[in-house]
Amino acid sequence: MKRKCRVFPTFELLGKKWTLHIIKELSWHGKKRYSELKRALEGVSPKTLTERLRELEKEDVIVRIVYPEVPPRVEYDLTDKGQDLSKSIDSICDWARKWYPDELRKA
Amino acid sequence: MKRKCRVFPTFELLGKKWTLHIIKELSWHGKKRYSELKRALEGVSPKTLTERLRELEKEDVIVRIVYPEVPPRVEYDLTDKGQDLSKSIDSICDWARKWYPDELRKA
Repeated sequence: MKRKCRVFPTFELLGKKWTLHIIKELSWHGKKRYSELKRALEGVSPKTLTERLRELEKEDVIVRIVYPEVPPRVEYDLTDKGQDLSKSIDSICDWARKWYPDELRKA
Repeated sequence: MKRKCRVFPTFELLGKKWTLHIIKELSWHGKKRYSELKRALEGVSPKTLTERLRELEKEDVIVRIVYPEVPPRVEYDLTDKGQDLSKSIDSICDWARKWYPDELRKA
């Protein structure tokens, strides 16, 4: 493919700690509440998780669903765009599996 | 794909400014000398370019070829692993083309 690729901002976001974790968690297990994400992403700080969720929301990769309940329930889910991105990310994962097989076995 | 992806370090490197530029430049135009890369990557500082090249070399994504000439000639090229990575990156580019069509037209 010889066309120019203008997606450096995407890679910048994907390169930030926890971004991929969040996308993959939602892709594998479906929508999640903040507290569930926090538990699934062992070690993430509340500040960072909130920041990443906002960044991903701003890019329309995830959506924040607020249920009209008392107390209000909030869940995060991948958008169609986010599900598409998740599939594209898999091709980089495939590359890593091929070229870092030892590292994956240890995981 | 439901398997765990352990490639966060790869995305971290890809998310750094100029990493993608370097990979794509070598992928599209073949091996290049430092000065040619510097010219192709308009605006990159010598310090950053050197740093990125070293990081990519350390990951075996690119190779530094030193020709036994006087004065010595040095060129950078993608390894097989790097060419593979370049192909995987294209899937993220495809995603961006699909979801940011306006941005691409402006480019």
